[in-house]
Amino acid sequence: MASETMPNWLVKRADLSPERVALITDDVTWTFSNLHKFSVSAANKLSALGVKAGDHVAVLMGNRMEFLSLMHGLEYIGAVAVLLNTKLTAHEISWQLKNSESKLVLFDDLFLEKLDNTPKTVQQLTLAEFINVEEGKAEIRTEYGLNEVHSIIYTSGTTGNPKGVMLSYGNHWWNAISSSLNLGLHTDDCWLCATPLFHVSGLSILMKSVFYGMPVFLIEKFEPSKVNAAIEKYHVTHISVVSQMLVRLVAALGERMYPKSFRCVLLGGGPAPKPLLEVCKEKGIPVYSSYGMTETASQIATLSTEYMLSKLGSAGKPLFPAQLRIEKDGQEQTANEAGEIVVKGPVVTKGYWKNEEATEKSIVNGWLYTGDIGYLDGDGFLYVLDRRNDLIISGGENIYPAEIEAVILSHQVIEEAGVVGKSDEKWGQVPVAFVKTWDGETVTKEEILSLCKERLAKYKVPVDVIFVEEGLPRNASNKLMRKELRKLLK
Amino acid sequence: MASETMPNWLVKRADLSPERVALITDDVTWTFSNLHKFSVSAANKLSALGVKAGDHVAVLMGNRMEFLSLMHGLEYIGAVAVLLNTKLTAHEISWQLKNSESKLVLFDDLFLEKLDNTPKTVQQLTLAEFINVEEGKAEIRTEYGLNEVHSIIYTSGTTGNPKGVMLSYGNHWWNAISSSLNLGLHTDDCWLCATPLFHVSGLSILMKSVFYGMPVFLIEKFEPSKVNAAIEKYHVTHISVVSQMLVRLVAALGERMYPKSFRCVLLGGGPAPKPLLEVCKEKGIPVYSSYGMTETASQIATLSTEYMLSKLGSAGKPLFPAQLRIEKDGQEQTANEAGEIVVKGPVVTKGYWKNEEATEKSIVNGWLYTGDIGYLDGDGFLYVLDRRNDLIISGGENIYPAEIEAVILSHQVIEEAGVVGKSDEKWGQVPVAFVKTWDGETVTKEEILSLCKERLAKYKVPVDVIFVEEGLPRNASNKLMRKELRKLLK
Repeated sequence: MASETMPNWLVKRADLSPERVALITDDVTWTFSNLHKFSVSAANKLSALGVKAGDHVAVLMGNRMEFLSLMHGLEYIGAVAVLLNTKLTAHEISWQLKNSESKLVLFDDLFLEKLDNTPKTVQQLTLAEFINVEEGKAEIRTEYGLNEVHSIIYTSGTTGNPKGVMLSYGNHWWNAISSSLNLGLHTDDCWLCATPLFHVSGLSILMKSVFYGMPVFLIEKFEPSKVNAAIEKYHVTHISVVSQMLVRLVAALGERMYPKSFRCVLLGGGPAPKPLLEVCKEKGIPVYSSYGMTETASQIATLSTEYMLSKLGSAGKPLFPAQLRIEKDGQEQTANEAGEIVVKGPVVTKGYWKNEEATEKSIVNGWLYTGDIGYLDGDGFLYVLDRRNDLIISGGENIYPAEIEAVILSHQVIEEAGVVGKSDEKWGQVPVAFVKTWDGETVTKEEILSLCKERLAKYKVPVDVIFVEEGLPRNASNKLMRKELRKLLK
Repeated sequence: MASETMPNWLVKRADLSPERVALITDDVTWTFSNLHKFSVSAANKLSALGVKAGDHVAVLMGNRMEFLSLMHGLEYIGAVAVLLNTKLTAHEISWQLKNSESKLVLFDDLFLEKLDNTPKTVQQLTLAEFINVEEGKAEIRTEYGLNEVHSIIYTSGTTGNPKGVMLSYGNHWWNAISSSLNLGLHTDDCWLCATPLFHVSGLSILMKSVFYGMPVFLIEKFEPSKVNAAIEKYHVTHISVVSQMLVRLVAALGERMYPKSFRCVLLGGGPAPKPLLEVCKEKGIPVYSSYGMTETASQIATLSTEYMLSKLGSAGKPLFPAQLRIEKDGQEQTANEAGEIVVKGPVVTKGYWKNEEATEKSIVNGWLYTGDIGYLDGDGFLYVLDRRNDLIISGGENIYPAEIEAVILSHQVIEEAGVVGKSDEKWGQVPVAFVKTWDGETVTKEEILSLCKERLAKYKVPVDVIFVEEGLPRNASNKLMRKELRKLLK
């Protein structure tokens, strides 16, 4: 089918509009022509390192300009980018490198110690080393297949190990197109990226940039004053945020207002607190609440302009190519009845890397069972109640209790562990652990936390450990009822 | 593959933005909610008439509001719209109805006499009759497959009978998306349609309307003063034209200028005369010269804003998802070398209805051999030299000499016939016939023209018949050299 292939994206964009700006950072301004040139160079270096089409190459770096040329360089060759979260521990990174069967990991020197446990099969190169690699001669692909895997991003599951979400070229393409049909597309659009590029939120901005011919204003570290300055002085028109970032932006803005040219705050990463939305409404800040996840290549539902005020608090309707329904016990729910959010559309992942079981469990006949809870109002607008049952969202990062519990349970004196989120003014939520030791055994809070620190990214380490005498609350099938733990917290 | 299906387009649009305006005519203004309601009604009537998924239903009408509800009604059921050119003769229409295996033809009462020869197998209903059909209960489709055939539009070939171009749902979708990535997408866009809806140029505006959530300003008959008034007073932002229409618009505009809100004149239907483009440049009219055809669901290449002035006369570059190359004798040509224009992309038709031979001849490995002649300049911009070798474009309508020649040759005293285009101030080109009778035979000019009038749409009837004594110029393989005839004309 003809629609399965497209011309090489960045080559196409650099041909259509070579002089348009592709990237703005503190240090550089790149046109699409520059970006293409640097991507060819990256592809040539990757080729010299033996990277071939279909190879998996891990990337461990922050929001640096090199991320862009590297990612497009991988596309040019047809290699798959495995995007590692820089906040992970050496232990977690080692697991993902191994699981993803990465051949090579390219990393920012900053994260050297995170590669301590790297499997011997994985070649490691710092960015500085990579830059010094002598270029080979890569064969730049002329076409991309929309069904091919473009990138893998790990997401922790409610149980067990993280799962590698395979995002296809088509997933990224359709996501950008879906968004443009909702937000419109102006010649002078400029999207600020202060969310990590290794997350689908940041990554999707890079994708849009190439399809739209639009500059990305790339921020290495989110600082409210810096972001506000970009919006007020440099004609930034769009920004993607999680609610914790928006709180800080609004606080830093003070009495000022954003310019009229500022078109969109795309708000994702979990339900937004209504008071925050109210403040934005008063200040005329165009907040587009959205719903999405790694498995949908970012937003799949977004509130549209005309309902921004009347449906405050809703994540809108599924975008043009997407479908969404609420299910409970296998039945589609009627209006205002809560249930699991189930979605379908060309942005939905093909599945989890080498995890057929998880894929088959999550995706049935093209419908993705998100595990998130929500309802549709009488007009069909989505309200998200709970992200993935027990998911904790801390400063935009997803934390799965099961992963932390597994680490705590690896300690020999622990019989049971349960982790839940506690409200936090700064981060939205933070994890708290409940533990029960085997009868007669003891352990200190510090020992547990130190185990967590060793194995888990900092944001996943519980802020507190609460010891319980009795067993943790469980349902009939002995499943931990974290809901009960949350009640205990209060 | 997930990307092969999408939710029902108009149902989706009516859900996302029910109150936005979908259609403006002299008489009515319809929202998407209205349009959906009328389309359901049309689907119900079609269902009562026995129309089922996969059936072919011919439509013979001008730019009327009913065209929209009928077309979406057909989508709702999954029937294929066969769009008939209202300028065709009864003879031509009969042939297309039969060839397309249409089950039903719905027509504007105006064209009653054009259905004189309708095959008995085809049920006929005037629009008035259709409106009075009692509604059945159609099962409205929830999803569309991008690979399904949406519509069939006949296009005459360089040889033999017209060919039914099958346009898929995906062809239309990708065309609209390709265009939006080039022209942008604003909330207040409004596209004026003064080209026939049975042509892909008009049809593609209806499609864009649903995807973009944008009103179509529908004009029944092109009148420059009316169109200019719509642009100047009713915030029309886009219009699709052929050069002959643009000439008249500019003439009627006189000393006035278009408002700044007027964003785009999409110019198609053959190479535009440079003096016209120069005038538009002076008057600040944003002309986007484009290249496309029925087989590519309208434009596949378009000049972008930033090169509008520097590359005047070019049809631009292939749009984001498309590819284009110039071939001669099977070899890709280098810059500035003329050859056949060959294109690829998700807008390219799946092929011709029940005409495997023509399909295989035209589409090779996804590449469509257009028969048009052009070259790419050193920067990769397309310049179209000749449409389909011998194609005559008269007021935006394609005229294939072979079709007229076949009619003339059906007269028993004619031995040879050759038709070529002559420059015409009003229509761009008009057809002229060269004929040679068998030795000793004679025929009057009037007799030939009357035969043509009986069998051919008015715009195809030659303006002149030139009798020659000697045989017509032919090449070594005895193929008529129309190029030589054109020289004779001068």
